[in-house]
This record gives sequence, structure tokens and C-alpha cells, in this order.
Amino acid sequence: MPLTVGVIGGGQLARMMVPPAIELGIGIHVLAETPNSSAGIAATAVGDFRDPETVLAFARDVDVVTFDHEHVPQPVLAALVDAGVAVRPGPAALAHAQDKLHMRRALQDIGVPVPDWAAVGTPAELDAFIDGGRAVVKTPRGGYDGKGVRVVGSADEVADWFGSGPLLAEELIGFRRELAQLVARRPSGELALWPVVETVQQNGVCAEVFAPAPGSAGAVADMAADIATTIAQQLDVTGVLAVELFETDDDRILVNELAMRPHNSGHWSIDGAVTSQFEQHLRAVLDLPLGATWCRAPWSVMVNVLGGPATGDLQSRYARAFADQPDVKFHAYGKDARPGRKVGHVTAVGDDLDDVVFRARAAAAFFED
Amino acid sequence: MPLTVGVIGGGQLARMMVPPAIELGIGIHVLAETPNSSAGIAATAVGDFRDPETVLAFARDVDVVTFDHEHVPQPVLAALVDAGVAVRPGPAALAHAQDKLHMRRALQDIGVPVPDWAAVGTPAELDAFIDGGRAVVKTPRGGYDGKGVRVVGSADEVADWFGSGPLLAEELIGFRRELAQLVARRPSGELALWPVVETVQQNGVCAEVFAPAPGSAGAVADMAADIATTIAQQLDVTGVLAVELFETDDDRILVNELAMRPHNSGHWSIDGAVTSQFEQHLRAVLDLPLGATWCRAPWSVMVNVLGGPATGDLQSRYARAFADQPDVKFHAYGKDARPGRKVGHVTAVGDDLDDVVFRARAAAAFFED
Repeated sequence: MPLTVGVIGGGQLARMMVPPAIELGIGIHVLAETPNSSAGIAATAVGDFRDPETVLAFARDVDVVTFDHEHVPQPVLAALVDAGVAVRPGPAALAHAQDKLHMRRALQDIGVPVPDWAAVGTPAELDAFIDGGRAVVKTPRGGYDGKGVRVVGSADEVADWFGSGPLLAEELIGFRRELAQLVARRPSGELALWPVVETVQQNGVCAEVFAPAPGSAGAVADMAADIATTIAQQLDVTGVLAVELFETDDDRILVNELAMRPHNSGHWSIDGAVTSQFEQHLRAVLDLPLGATWCRAPWSVMVNVLGGPATGDLQSRYARAFADQPDVKFHAYGKDARPGRKVGHVTAVGDDLDDVVFRARAAAAFFED
Repeated sequence: MPLTVGVIGGGQLARMMVPPAIELGIGIHVLAETPNSSAGIAATAVGDFRDPETVLAFARDVDVVTFDHEHVPQPVLAALVDAGVAVRPGPAALAHAQDKLHMRRALQDIGVPVPDWAAVGTPAELDAFIDGGRAVVKTPRGGYDGKGVRVVGSADEVADWFGSGPLLAEELIGFRRELAQLVARRPSGELALWPVVETVQQNGVCAEVFAPAPGSAGAVADMAADIATTIAQQLDVTGVLAVELFETDDDRILVNELAMRPHNSGHWSIDGAVTSQFEQHLRAVLDLPLGATWCRAPWSVMVNVLGGPATGDLQSRYARAFADQPDVKFHAYGKDARPGRKVGHVTAVGDDLDDVVFRARAAAAFFED
């Protein structure tokens, strides 16, 4: 039997782990939510990741369990650990990615720069935090792609969110741009960092990534790398950790969010780095030596493809898109193109940033409505 | 349903089509010979490719049928065509890859340079061809990796081969080195060529590939490209065509062999070209526009990993190999490491040829005995 990684969750992140698993000859088993999941080709089980029996049975045939998402409940993770299963990242690390209040407290404790924040249990506490200005309010759990996040001037605007525990209130940061620093760490401690990238969000969803972040001076790159290294080590993260950052108007780097898995901000690495985040995640969770992370071209630009009202079948547009952009790499997730849903991405690489941006956007435009 | 390619044969060539199929969101179905084939992750059927019913049933759910090998009998191919199945490359083209006498006649007819040759039906005819010197004798069918090829000074040395039809006798070429020119062609006629590469054989098996072929002057590259283009067009090849070439001591380029599928001499393209031979083959057989074929680095060097007497499990050597060569790409075929069997390959890329050769060989050496 080859070394085998078990991935809980059958989304596009699990899907994109499959090609490097095939190339390396590593087995990959996926516990998918539905029979037609994005990672269906590697699905060995279909079931509910909240059910301990389902997850324990799935874990029996693999060497290590890892994740497509951060939603596996702590009691299920504890049951895996109790059964002797290697779980990477481990439950204690994952807790920080599952609960934003937990994350903010931990980052503050280890001295990593974060926006001013408070746990607010009542509208009065929130209004006191807002103090007549504006603030960001987040539900501690279950948010993604802009969901569970509101910018408000009054507690009235999140009245519907109170009642199930405290919310996270944060200072509204004046930022120049958003960055992301990805790092991989294996249980034995080895770390590998890709260059810091710039991410562009639209409606709370990642739209474009520029790798490396243009004009990221030595100081910015160093701060981002130091922050991600500190977090990975202090929180004992294994596998890929994505640290989303603000570069503020006053030249600070603050942590916005964490993800403990491959991340949209690292998709460029499939085509732009010697070792992609997906291959690296497999190496890391198997505690194998990490691969080199240098860029294979001066610039890589990734543009997400979102489902639109009439996107329909992406493949009906391949003939025109491929002919127009023969050196752009196209990635489709095998998902129905529901409006706003991430259904694929494209990556261009090259020497000239303007040219690379142009080609990536031109390719993605074939899938817009 | 996505566009779906059906591959007959479950070897490593089918296996290496799976990652680009996943990335492009193209379905891939494999008809494998055994349940534990190299391409098992995509196997939708296990059966005998010589059985028309098996192959017709397999072809029912795919948009086009293509091949991991050239051994599907012509009557089975004819049955597919009769049933309206798109078969690429088509039966007439494939016949040239199935029978070396057929191939030699066709290449001579279209004016492509080949070694002197003859079809010899008897030992006396062969001895007349040898004429006191030495010659290469090949069985027209079934040879691969040096099998079915002997260099002889007398018909006595292939006495066991006579009796089932004529053999191919060829002039023993004095060659400086061996080259390979890969080209992809789609039914609509579009062609794309990778740079000509140098291949190094050991015991009749491909051992190393240098891409591009070092010191391939303009004239050599032009001749190789012209020859491959002529063959692809004149023989109506669709998909990837590999043309193995001799660069002779007297500066001629002669065709040695043809393969109408992805080929060992193109494995470097997974890591070294914008579009790999495997992605290109999928595009070509689906009649989608071809991808760019430029090199992602000045040099790519591929070294095959063969099973040795004590190779055992490749993965038991990953920790040391990965640590020693963090920027080499490792590819394992999921096959038992029987002595002499191709079980994987490694590719290094970079700016300095000596360094790239060193790294690729160093990585492969971890799997030798």
C-alpha cells in the first residue's frame, strides 16, 4: 500500500490535491459530502463529516487525515485522535481557524499584530466599541467569502446576529491593499514559505492574486514572513497555513484571517511555483521533506472564475478561450456554475506584469456573462 | 456531463493524463487490463482491449477514444469506427505505429529520410541484406523498450524469429546521438511542436532526456520539426506523435521509430513546458485549441527510475530523496518495482545544464540499487 492521505471534504481544495498525489504516487482518499463532489474522482466514501462513526471508518485506511475545510467539529477530531489517527493540522491548531474569537485571543497572546478588537455579547457593548464611528462585526464561526462579516455604524445593523454567544468586533482598518502569506510546516518542524502575494477581493470574495505582491519591499515581505512563521510555530500548525494580511495606510502589517489548509491565495502556485501548495500540503501532512517554493517565473497572476447568471457549462467556452490564450492555464472545479460560486480559476505567468495581468484577465473574461 | 476522454490501457501514460484532465475539468475514463493498474484512479472498466464487446461498451460513455498503447487490434478499432465512435488517432494512422514494415513503407512513400531497409522473409534474404557486415533486425510487431530488436552479423542470430511473416532489416546507423521530436495535431489540422530533445538509451530503454537537445543547431531543429510535421500531416495523426530520430555521424536526421501517443521522451514537458504532452494530448483528441509549448526554463532533464533487484517501495526512499533535492519533481507510476521496469521518473529544470543534469541524476540515484 502506498502512503495514503485522507481528506475530509470533497471541494475544490481536495480536488486540487489529487494531481500531485497521482504524480508522487501517494494514495488519496476523500470523504465527500455528496456523490458528485468536486473531488469525486478520489472519493472513497460519501457521508457526514459531523458523524464520528463515518469519519472513524473513513480514517481506518489512511496514514493521516487532513481537510478540505475547517468545519469538522472538535468532538469528531477528538475521537480521531483518541483512536490513534494522525490528524494534521491537529485539533488544537484547527480551533483557531474555526473560531475567530479564539484566533484573535491567541494571536494577541503570541504578540502578532492584529486590528483592535473586542468580544461583544450585547448591542450595548458593540455600540460602545463602535463609539460613534464604524466597525467590522464578524460571527465567530461559519463565515467564508464575505459571509458573516458586516461593516456597521450601529449595533442595530447586526441585531439578527445576537443571541448565540459573543460576536467579534474589530477596528475598521484603513488599508492600502490585502496580502496573503502562505507557509507550510511539517510535524518535525521544517517550514517553507512562498513569497507574499497581493489579493484583490470583490464583494468579499477573492478575485485576483498577484504573486509576488508587486512592490513588496523587503520590509513588507519580512514582516509577512515573520508573522506567518510565528503563527505556524506558536499554534503548532501542520500542513499549509494561509495568513490573510492588511497592509495599512500607515505601513503596518496586521493579521486579518487564518486558514489552515490550501487557500485561494495560493492557487497560483500550481503553475507559478516549483512546489504547489497542494503538493506541499501532502508532503507536510505526511511529514516528508518540503519542496522548494521559488517562483518559476517573475510574475504569476491568478483570476478566479465565478459562476454567473448565464455561465452555464464552462467547457462550451473552452474553444474560444484556449485559442485566444494558449499559454494561460485553465482550472475547472467540476461544479455547477451557480451565480457567485467559485467554479474555476486561470493563471498566467511571465516576465512582464502588465502582460501577465492582461492575459489572465482576458482568459477569465471568456467565462463571464 | 463534462467532455470525457476514454483511454484504452491503464499504464503510466494513461495515469499521467489524469492530472491535466482533473485541472481542465475534463472527464477521463480508463479501460484497464487489471484492477490495480497504474491508471487505476480513473479506471471505469477492467477488461480485455482485444475484445470488441468490452471496448464498445467502454466507449459508450465517452466523447472520444484514445490510447495508452498501440496494441488494440485493427478489427476492434474498425468496430469502434463503425459504431460512430471518435477514435484518435484513427485506425489508419495507428497501423503505422503497430507494424514497423508498414511504417517504413509509408515513410519512404512520403519522402521522409529513413535508414536503408528491407522486408526479409527468409534467412537467405536477410544474409543478402547483411552482405557480410552487420544489420539491425526488428520484429514488425510487438516490440518495445529494446525487445524485438537485435543487431546481428548473420541470419542465424534471429533464426527463432522467422516463420511468422517477414522481418524488418535495417542498415546499422552510425549515429552521433538520438533525438525525439514530439508534435501534437488536432483533427482540424492545428499542429504544435515542442523543441527537439536528446534521448539517451541504456539497454534499449530510454534512460535520460535533455530538453531542448543541447547544441541542436537551427538546421537540426528545423529538420526534426519538418520531418515530424510531414509525418503528422501525411499520416493524418491526431493526438501526440513522437518521432524518434538518429542524428547521424554524417549530419543526417533519419527516422528510427514512431509512437502515436504521449511518449517517454516527452515526460519532461510535465514540469518543463507550458503545456505538457499529456494535457496537449487531451486537447488534441478533443479537437480543442492546442496549448503553447514553450519551455518554462532553459533546460529540463528527465531521468527514468527503473526497478532494480532491491528497489522495493519507492516511497521508503522519499524522505532522503526529497530532502536532498527539494526542487526536483518526482513522479511515481504506482507499479511494483520489478527489475528493469519503468516505475517512475524525475525531472529537474533550471538555467545551467550541468547543474540540472546533476540534480536530476542525484534524485534518481536514490531509487537505484
